[in-house]
Amino acid sequence: MADLIAGCVEAGVDKVGLWREQVAEFGLEKTAALAKDAGLAVTSLCRGGFFNKPDWYDENRRAIDEAAVLGAPVLVLVSGGLPEGSRDIDGARAHVGDAIGQLVPYALDAGVQLAIEPLHPMFASDRCVVSTLSQALDLAAPYPSAAVGAVVDTYHLWWDDQVWAQIARAGAEGRIACFQAADWITPLPEGVLLGRGLPGEGCVELRRFREAVDAAGYDGPVEVEVFHADLWARPGAEILTATMSAYEQHVA
Amino acid sequence: MADLIAGCVEAGVDKVGLWREQVAEFGLEKTAALAKDAGLAVTSLCRGGFFNKPDWYDENRRAIDEAAVLGAPVLVLVSGGLPEGSRDIDGARAHVGDAIGQLVPYALDAGVQLAIEPLHPMFASDRCVVSTLSQALDLAAPYPSAAVGAVVDTYHLWWDDQVWAQIARAGAEGRIACFQAADWITPLPEGVLLGRGLPGEGCVELRRFREAVDAAGYDGPVEVEVFHADLWARPGAEILTATMSAYEQHVA
Repeated sequence: MADLIAGCVEAGVDKVGLWREQVAEFGLEKTAALAKDAGLAVTSLCRGGFFNKPDWYDENRRAIDEAAVLGAPVLVLVSGGLPEGSRDIDGARAHVGDAIGQLVPYALDAGVQLAIEPLHPMFASDRCVVSTLSQALDLAAPYPSAAVGAVVDTYHLWWDDQVWAQIARAGAEGRIACFQAADWITPLPEGVLLGRGLPGEGCVELRRFREAVDAAGYDGPVEVEVFHADLWARPGAEILTATMSAYEQHVA
Repeated sequence: MADLIAGCVEAGVDKVGLWREQVAEFGLEKTAALAKDAGLAVTSLCRGGFFNKPDWYDENRRAIDEAAVLGAPVLVLVSGGLPEGSRDIDGARAHVGDAIGQLVPYALDAGVQLAIEPLHPMFASDRCVVSTLSQALDLAAPYPSAAVGAVVDTYHLWWDDQVWAQIARAGAEGRIACFQAADWITPLPEGVLLGRGLPGEGCVELRRFREAVDAAGYDGPVEVEVFHADLWARPGAEILTATMSAYEQHVA
C-alpha cells in the first residue's frame, strides 16, 4: 500500500481504487491517512456484496464503514453466486435486490453509493448472479440513485449488444457509479479469474465504451482494473507505467 | 463411429447427433449406410458456420451436402469469432446474418435447416459472436423458418434471464431447430471448452428448459451434448449409460 501510494504520487496519478483485503492488511486508518497526506483520492472500494453468504448484512455494513473512512464515494458490489447446491438463479437475483434494499439507509447515512457490478456470465454460478447492465439497473431501480448505482466494466460487458442502450439508460437514471476498463484476451486461464488484458491487448472497443459513458453524462474517474498473473508478477512502477500508457492510447 | 452406432442400438437409443470430423474420419457414405441399416436417425450435424474464415461459403455448402447425405434435418452453425485483429463485433454479427442469407437457397434445396447456435458469451471473441437466443432469432428473422432456425443449448443460455421469453418467441416463430442439454459446472478448465457437466452435475434448471421448449411447441429430439475430458476418458458404453440415466433423472 505504501509503495502503491508513493508510486501514484511519483507518476502524477491523483486517484486510485482500492480493495478491502489490501486495505485491511495495511490498516484502514493508516491507509486513509497516508492517501490523504499524499493528496490521493480513493475513487472506489472493492468489494461488498456476496449476498449468498450468511453474514452478508454485517459484512456489507463494515464495507460501507470502510469506504466512508477512506473517503471513497462508491462501494463496488460483487453480488455472489448461487447458494451452495441451489439452481434458483431467479431467486438469487431477487435476493440481491432485497439485500441491497436493506443496506440503502445505512449507505445513505454514510454517504457511500452502492455500485452493483454485473460480472461476465461465465461467473454467474460462483461469483455473481448479476450478469448484465440491464439486470443491475433493474435491481437498482427501486432505490434512489444516491444510494444505488451500477458499475460499467468493459471486461464484463463488451459482448452484450444491449450494453450501449443500457449505458444511455444508466446515465439518464444517474446510476453510472464507476467506469472500469480492461481488455478481453484468450485463451482464458483455468478458473477464468486472472485472464484480463491491459487496454489494447484484446478485442474490446474500449474507446467506444468511454465515449458511451461520456455521452451518458458520466464525468467521474476511469479505473483500469486488470487481473493477470503475468502482469502482477512485474514490478509495481512498471505496471503503473504500462497501465497509464495503455489507458492513454486506447481509452482516453 | 461403428462402436457408437452399435452402442446406441444396444442401448435402445434410436437417434443420434453427429459431428463432421468423426463422420469424415469414418467416411460419409459409410456412416450414412451404417446408421440407416441400424435404424438410427441422425438428428443433427455439427457444425457449419465459422463465417470469419475465408472459405466459409464453400465449406458450409459442403456441410449442407453432408447433412443431406446423412438424412440429418438440421445443420448446427457455430458462427465463428472475430476476424483476426478485429474489434468490430457488430460488424461480425451482421456478416453472420448476410452469410446465412447467401446459404438459404442451397439449404432449402437440400432440405436442411440451418440452426444458428448462440454460444456462451465467454466464447464471443474466438468461437461464436452470437451470444444470446435473442441475437440468433434476430439474425434468422429475414429468412423462412424452414431454412433458418436456432439451437437452444442449456449450457450456453442458462444465465440469461431473457431466455424464457426468447424460447417462447422461437417457438412462435417456428425456429427451435434443436434442443441440447448439458450442465454448468465450475471451476472452468483452461480454454473453457471442455468444462461441461452431465445433466444433474451442475446448476442449470434443465427441466425448466425442457418444459419451456415443450410449451413453445417443440416436439423434436433432445440431444445431451457434454464436452469434458474426464467423461470422454471413460468407455463409450459407460458414457452412454450415464448420459441416459442423467437425462431421465434431470431432463425428461
